[in-house]
This record gives sequence, structure tokens and C-alpha cells, in this order.
Amino acid sequence: MKLPIKALGLARKDEKGILDLRIYSIGKSSNKKNEYKIDRSAIEIHLVDDKPLEDIPTAWLKLHLLSLRHYKPNELNLENIFSVLPNLVWDQRGYGWRVESYLKKEYGAMATDLSLEDPNFDEKDFVKNFKSDGLVPPTFDLIKSIDKFPPMTNHVIPSDVRIADVSRVRLGAYLGKGTTIMHEGFVNYNAGTEGPNMIEGRISAGVFIGKDSDLGGGSSTMGTLSGGNEEVIKVGERCLLGANSGIGISLGNDCTVEAGLYLTAGTKVTVLENNKVLKALELSGKDGILYFRDSLSGKVCAKPNKVEFKLNKVLHDNN
Amino acid sequence: MKLPIKALGLARKDEKGILDLRIYSIGKSSNKKNEYKIDRSAIEIHLVDDKPLEDIPTAWLKLHLLSLRHYKPNELNLENIFSVLPNLVWDQRGYGWRVESYLKKEYGAMATDLSLEDPNFDEKDFVKNFKSDGLVPPTFDLIKSIDKFPPMTNHVIPSDVRIADVSRVRLGAYLGKGTTIMHEGFVNYNAGTEGPNMIEGRISAGVFIGKDSDLGGGSSTMGTLSGGNEEVIKVGERCLLGANSGIGISLGNDCTVEAGLYLTAGTKVTVLENNKVLKALELSGKDGILYFRDSLSGKVCAKPNKVEFKLNKVLHDNN
Amino acid sequence: MKLPIKALGLARKDEKGILDLRIYSIGKSSNKKNEYKIDRSAIEIHLVDDKPLEDIPTAWLKLHLLSLRHYKPNELNLENIFSVLPNLVWDQRGYGWRVESYLKKEYGAMATDLSLEDPNFDEKDFVKNFKSDGLVPPTFDLIKSIDKFPPMTNHVIPSDVRIADVSRVRLGAYLGKGTTIMHEGFVNYNAGTEGPNMIEGRISAGVFIGKDSDLGGGSSTMGTLSGGNEEVIKVGERCLLGANSGIGISLGNDCTVEAGLYLTAGTKVTVLENNKVLKALELSGKDGILYFRDSLSGKVCAKPNKVEFKLNKVLHDNN
Repeated sequence: MKLPIKALGLARKDEKGILDLRIYSIGKSSNKKNEYKIDRSAIEIHLVDDKPLEDIPTAWLKLHLLSLRHYKPNELNLENIFSVLPNLVWDQRGYGWRVESYLKKEYGAMATDLSLEDPNFDEKDFVKNFKSDGLVPPTFDLIKSIDKFPPMTNHVIPSDVRIADVSRVRLGAYLGKGTTIMHEGFVNYNAGTEGPNMIEGRISAGVFIGKDSDLGGGSSTMGTLSGGNEEVIKVGERCLLGANSGIGISLGNDCTVEAGLYLTAGTKVTVLENNKVLKALELSGKDGILYFRDSLSGKVCAKPNKVEFKLNKVLHDNN
Repeated sequence: MKLPIKALGLARKDEKGILDLRIYSIGKSSNKKNEYKIDRSAIEIHLVDDKPLEDIPTAWLKLHLLSLRHYKPNELNLENIFSVLPNLVWDQRGYGWRVESYLKKEYGAMATDLSLEDPNFDEKDFVKNFKSDGLVPPTFDLIKSIDKFPPMTNHVIPSDVRIADVSRVRLGAYLGKGTTIMHEGFVNYNAGTEGPNMIEGRISAGVFIGKDSDLGGGSSTMGTLSGGNEEVIKVGERCLLGANSGIGISLGNDCTVEAGLYLTAGTKVTVLENNKVLKALELSGKDGILYFRDSLSGKVCAKPNKVEFKLNKVLHDNN
Repeated sequence: MKLPIKALGLARKDEKGILDLRIYSIGKSSNKKNEYKIDRSAIEIHLVDDKPLEDIPTAWLKLHLLSLRHYKPNELNLENIFSVLPNLVWDQRGYGWRVESYLKKEYGAMATDLSLEDPNFDEKDFVKNFKSDGLVPPTFDLIKSIDKFPPMTNHVIPSDVRIADVSRVRLGAYLGKGTTIMHEGFVNYNAGTEGPNMIEGRISAGVFIGKDSDLGGGSSTMGTLSGGNEEVIKVGERCLLGANSGIGISLGNDCTVEAGLYLTAGTKVTVLENNKVLKALELSGKDGILYFRDSLSGKVCAKPNKVEFKLNKVLHDNN
């Protein structure tokens, strides 16, 4: 789907501005510039020019375009997203609230059972005496999250995926067909999988995993938002990141990282074919490498990857 | 409980077949063969012969038999389970839906608040104009999971266990009495613990943990479904897998794997007593070994485990 | 806030005692000794003397005092908390139930849809025939957790924090202003952060993280409850624990632990400046150290930390 794009939706607002929104239609725009218009709760968003974010509706639209598979990670400009999006309390119905207003929300549906021992319990009196300062009023719905991003599936459910725990995939994730995100998997916004993939590790913002690759349980891909990595990481096709392994470099196709090995950009890697020592960053993106730590010498080594990795088809068919 | 087994339950169906079911009674069968009968929503399942799975009700019954502690992991034939079970969207009430029907579900209870700014908002009009293709209609209940397996506690709550986050234990897990699954713990179907156990790591399908053993935070046990391990792993009694460690071999009794060490089947292990080097697989299942990586030489070593590991009783009593 | 403290709340009880409670006001007490009084469901708690726990209301009050930031981790005596607190099933409204009573709870609101295929389905008959022994009745609300501790945000929502998945922060956690707990982060009771902090790893009971420090994805801090560590761990300011790293010692200020490295108390660390070998425990709490495993020799090394670590401000502002 090409720019310019027009989206229609509904926006929830309070006196400080837009809280969250629902998009119910995405199509072609004939607008000449980025713009959004609100008529009571109805909102119309025009995305014409893909520049750094300046408002909440455009941020939400771009996150939707990623999760709806119209754009892949890093194809849209998401600069400023952390300063544009407010931090909200997300309730069990998918609504976002500012913390302070959530704590002051009026009496909910939870009251009756609280007095299960006490026929004389006076709710009105109780509420009158309630003092907040962080205390959650006893009659509230539970919350799921306090975050700038809602879970993807509150807004978009892509076809042909499995996601064992939807709270671990943020809106703005791109999950290609045939992707399975297991309980230990995680996908940030502007990150994802080409599909099919088996993901039991963490896909950081900006990271994209090529088809037929497997991220083992607890494996890590370094992002650029925190922790100091600067390279945006890609993983090619038919790669296997072993359980509890991690990468601070990109992998080409047909690479394997041994379970438990963390390859940072600065790791000195001994290339077994010629016994040369390279920084891992120099191998970034190269195909057909098996990375492992020699268990006799403690050396981190690279050698040609002879085992051709295949996803277990039975786990992905019929997703 | 021995075969033949009869179970009674209720099944939810759509035009493509059974979605999910509820079992409300399990007892003895006098049937001569595997069979299930549906009379409207009432279902009767007979499990006589433990062979590869061919239908959804038998799959659900076997998963229940595991979680209800009638059978231990690997005692029932679960072959074909991934092709038999449909991939469903699980809502907050525990119902499973096909993705496409979920996205078309009729107007729910969420509508009113959406128009919190807008007294003139016309719900009917809005619904009429809604275009799906992956967009979640604004009036839906949130979902928890898109998976072939529901969480165990939607269907079975075994006695004497703690499970900090029930979304991380699949139906078909076997949790022995006195088991604690912390927030970072995970138990797949056909996997589990003898109890008592402290589990802050991941128990993959097929893996069984002996009593009084502790899986440290983020520790990993390699499964056979993906990632390439072929051996079904067992952990004996009084073992400790350190935090962020992992195993691709079985442990006997009284073994410890140092925090952060991943022992794959192919790891070359230096046995300190005789200075011989063995593949970890050759040590698989042996008792009384402490595995660690020498922090001066980088060698992975094995030596007799002198510290007798004891679970912290106070964490397990009164579960 | 100094002792003596008085709290007002509501308690839910069954025939075995108090299940859970809600605190709606905390102030000064003029009591002379620890005491709590229940008048039907209204409860008044006086905390005068900070000694080992003897009852449920005082335990809940102390957990609140931590999460409300009146006390920091290890400033209140929480001894006996595991024997004092009952293990409860937590439902989606935040109520705690004993397992056996939960399984016998009377007919809930889920019944109607179950018979979606069957106009003649007789609910009363069905309930009469239901046999529990661990089976969850088909008409129940789903549960979230079986634990002694509820999630913090069921009871306390502190200001200026983000928590991507609230099920991973227990009541009794202390989260300083500007703390972000990502999906992979975890904070136990009596543990926490000074703030601002980025937490994508696990903060065990008793552990406190100084301001401007970052716990990378899947990183581990050893606790004293299980697994055998004896030292209570602290992390100073401006520290970085790399992804999948871990510590069994304390860090001073300005320390970095390389991604993937687990430093236990017994790890032999080669100090590069003088080539001396020390046990990690001897370096515990020291400032300005970079810990890493030499990728050529497999040696665990320490050297002066030259890179000054800075949190990504944009991720923490506007929390």
C-alpha cells in the first residue's frame, strides 16, 4: 500500500488530548499533506509524507500499517514516537487512561463482592473516605499494562499466526504468515518476522527475522533503543539462534548461533578455516556460519555451517 | 487411572468442526474401541487404545489426563497433536474462536465508552462501515492468546501448586504437588514436574523434572519439537539448574549446572577427576555431577557435586 | 513515613481466615503495639513495631508501604511472609480464593455461550452432574494466578512508571519514578529500583537497583530465597547488565557486565590491570568495573570501565 493513505477511526480524548484510537478503515487519500481531523469522536487521518512523528493519530496509523503488513519494519519513519505517545494505563477492555484519571475513575462494578462478609457495609461511605496517592480504589477493573503501546491484538489480528501470550507483541509488530510466537517470545513495535518462523526469543525494535528462521527460547537480538548497540540487526533465512543465545550483529542466511553464546559486535571470533581473528562486526550479515564457543579453549569460533536448518513444518502448518 | 476411560463434556462447534470443549466427568469406559459421540453440545469420549491422535476430543481428553495427574509426561501417545488441534483465538472467558469468525463476531459490550466524547455517535452506522482484514472491531472483548492449546487453568486447577502467571502453563502440563511456577517459569504440554519443585525456567514438551529440583530463572531445557535436539530430556532429583543455564542432555540425581552455562549434547566436557574429555551426551543421566565453565581457562568441566542441594522448604509448604 | 502507622481497609474472609484485603487509607497511629481489629469487613491495622510477620493484614500493609514508596526494599522486616500468606487463586477481578472454594464457587456468568449449539441444554442438570477433583467448572471466570502475592497494580499504581505487563511485578515491589519495566522485566516483593531505570531483566527479592542503571533483556540478579546465594545484591548507579547476563555479587557505580556473562560469587576474575585473580565476591560492590569474558582465552576478566553508561532519556521522560 502506497502513500498517500487515509484512515478512518474513532478517538477517545480527555482534556489533555487524545488517549487512544480505533481504526476501522484504511484506504487511499487524495490529501496534499499530512493532516488529521476530529469531528467529535470520529477521526480522519491523512498520511502523505513519511516524516518524523508529530502527533498521536499518525503514530497509531503507522503502527497499524506495520501490523497489517502494509509496511515492513524500518520502512516507515517512527522517529519521536516515545515523545509523541502518552503513557497510559490499559484496562481489561482495551481502553487507555492517564494514571491520575484512572485512580479517580468513578465507582465500578466490583463493589458488591467486597462486602461478602458484611451486610451493613456502606459503599458510599467507603468511597467518600477513600484516599488515593497511588492506592487503587477497591472497585476498579484490573489493569493489564502501563505503557505507550497497546498489545497488537487489541487492534490488529493478522492471519496465519500463533501468539501464545498476546501481551508480548506490541502494536507495530510485523508478523509474517506462518509465524509462531511462543510464550517466551517477544516482538517490539517496528520489528518482526517474514514468516514462517518459530520465535521463542526477543525481537527488539528495528530487528527483522527472515523466513524459516528460529529464535530459540530466551534468545536475544540487540536493539538500538537501550543498552548501547548501534547497528540495526537483521537475521537472514534458515538461521537458528540457540536457546539463551544472543546477537549484537546481523546474521546472513543459514547461520547458527550455539545455545548460550552471546555474540556482541566486539566479540573476537576465531575463524577456524584460516585461524584469523576478526571482530564479530566484520562477520555481520555473512552467510553460512556456525558460531560457537569452543568448550575446551573458551574461544569463540566461526566455521562453515554444515547442518541445513529446517523449521519443524508441523508446528507452522495450519496456524 | 487405567484405560479404557470415558469422559463426559460439552463441545462448542462451528461449521468447520469442534472448537473447544469442557470435560466435567472422567471415569471408566466399557467401550471396545476409541470413539466419541456428540448429541447437540453434549460429548462422550471413549479412550480405549492409546494410539496417535486422530480427533480433537481425544486430544483434549489426553491433555486433561496429564494435567489431572492421571498420567505422567510421555506416558500417553500425543503424536499428531499439532495437525489435529485447530489454531484458535482465546478470549477472556476461555472460549476459542477461529480468527476469521472472531473478527466477524457480532457487536459486543464495548461500544458505549468509545463514544465518551460524542453523544451523537451512531453505533449502527459505525459497524456498517467497519472493514476488517485483520482490524479488530472496536467493540470486542480483548483476547489472551492465539494458539492450539489453552492455558491449563482454564480447564484444570491441580491441588497444592503455585503458578504466578497461569498463561505460561499449557493444558497438558503435569504439575506434581508442591510445585511452584514463578513468573519466568514455563511448562509446555506433555511436560512437567514430580513435585515439590521450584521452577523459574522453561520446561519443554517431553521434559520431566524430578522431585526437589530447582530450575533457576531463565534456565532452559531443550525440547525435541524445534531447534534440533533429539534426546528427550529428564532431570533427576535434587538438581539445580542455575539461572540462565540450559541443558541439551539429561541430568541424573544431585546434579548442578552453573548459572549461565549451556550444556548442549555436543559440548566437550573435561572430567576433572581423570582429565578425560567426553561429549556431554556421554554423561547424560549420570548422578552427582557439578557442571561449570572454568573461569580461568574457559573449559567446560565436570566434577563430583559436593554441595547437597535442598529446596527452600518455606517456599513450598502451604502451596 | 515513620512508625507507628495506621491503615484502614476492607478484608475478605472465609471460615479459614482472611483471604485478601484492600487498603484505602494510611496515616499515623497512636497505638502502643502491633494490632489489627476487624469489624465485619472493615479492618484497622496498627504497625508500631517492625518485627517478623505474624498475621496477614500486617504483611499486606508492609507490602503496600513498599509499593507506595514509603519504605525501600530491606527497610521493613518481612520474615515469615511465606508462612503467613495463604496461597490463593486470583480471579480477573482481583479477588483471591482458596483453590477448593474456587472450584466449588457457584454457577457464574459463562453458562449461556457454552450451549451455543444446543437449545435444549439444561444448565441445572449439567451442574448437578459436574465432578471436580481439579476440573474447572465450565461456567467460571478465568483466573490469572495462583500465588501468595497479587500483582502490585491490583492494589497500588505508583506515579511515573511504565510496566509493560503488570503480571510481572508483585505487590511489595518498589518502583522509583522514571522506572520502565519492559515485558521481560520482573520485580519481586521487597525489591526494586531507585528510578529512573530501564528494566528488561529480573529483580529478585531483596535486590535494589540504583538510579540510571539498565538491566538488559533476560538478565538475572541472584536472590537469596532459592538457588543458594547468600549475599543480598545491590546494583549501583549508571550500571548496565547486558542482555542474558547475570550477577551473584553486588555492583558499585558505573559497572558493566557484558551480555551473556554470568558472574557468580565464586567466579574467578582476572583483573587485567595487575593480572591478579580474585573471586568475584572480593570485587562485590566496587565501582567502575567492566566485567567480560575474553573471547580468545575464555577467561573472565575485569578492567576499568571507560564507557560512561547513559540511559536513553527519551524512553523515560514522560513516563
